[in-house]
Amino acid sequence: MIVEVYRGKRLSVEKKRVALPDGRTHERVIVHPGSAVAMLPIEGEFCYLIRQYRFAVGEYICEAPAGTIDEGEEPEAAAHRELIEEIGMRAGTLIPRGFIYPSPGYTDEKIHLYEARHLAPSAEYRMDEDELIEAVRVRTAEIPAMIRDGRITDAKTICLAYRCLR
Amino acid sequence: MIVEVYRGKRLSVEKKRVALPDGRTHERVIVHPGSAVAMLPIEGEFCYLIRQYRFAVGEYICEAPAGTIDEGEEPEAAAHRELIEEIGMRAGTLIPRGFIYPSPGYTDEKIHLYEARHLAPSAEYRMDEDELIEAVRVRTAEIPAMIRDGRITDAKTICLAYRCLR
Repeated sequence: MIVEVYRGKRLSVEKKRVALPDGRTHERVIVHPGSAVAMLPIEGEFCYLIRQYRFAVGEYICEAPAGTIDEGEEPEAAAHRELIEEIGMRAGTLIPRGFIYPSPGYTDEKIHLYEARHLAPSAEYRMDEDELIEAVRVRTAEIPAMIRDGRITDAKTICLAYRCLR
Repeated sequence: MIVEVYRGKRLSVEKKRVALPDGRTHERVIVHPGSAVAMLPIEGEFCYLIRQYRFAVGEYICEAPAGTIDEGEEPEAAAHRELIEEIGMRAGTLIPRGFIYPSPGYTDEKIHLYEARHLAPSAEYRMDEDELIEAVRVRTAEIPAMIRDGRITDAKTICLAYRCLR
């Protein structure tokens, strides 16, 4: 039995009776925020990240460009679209770097990761009007220190660095 | 204005009108699952991970021991408690490795990370009865390959590996 306890424009919450592999059942809450893409754009010795105000945590954080996949959209198409929207760049090459589950304890959200290469400024650049975003160019060699000292706290960005830069 | 649209035992969902730093306001949905801890237990050449059935994603995944912080509990106390509950080990030393935001686009969840050292079997071992967990001992040197080839897809586990093993 599944009960939808909340449905918003993007995110919904379901309560359901879950059967475990051993046959027992439990009531669980599952958040469905939709799936997403996150990209690490790399050009020469530099990466492009964004500084973005995140209302949920109440601060600006430093993270990789990312966004929700639209209905019916392929993950790779979403990756191209978000790179243009967030940093104004078109990627000549997108290298798939697998996916991650950001918080599998309560959500089925899946984030597809890509390394973005061969970047060129996009003529289609238009910033999402409800996001406060600033693109920042960071020396790739500096990213491990930023992750270790807490300048980068965003999980998907750390996972991208792990999968793309090692 | 904040409207609570759902409240469960652990997780609640709020809709609120958010003021951005530039003065504009937007309606946003924020999921509050509570804060958590995740630990990478390391002993000699081995790490302890768990294989756990995650109903939200419908599969067993390989991840670091972790859990929600109880009300009024210190993160470090939660880390000790969860290590005992999930792998039956007491940690002589917990080294703080900062925190991560697993999905700052819609949730304020924060996961405090620890490297757990000087492990000893705990007499208090009792498994959480609503979790299906199996502790697995993994060669630490194998973890980077497991992260790259997708045997590890859990974000907090990858972040722990980044902060503890480099």
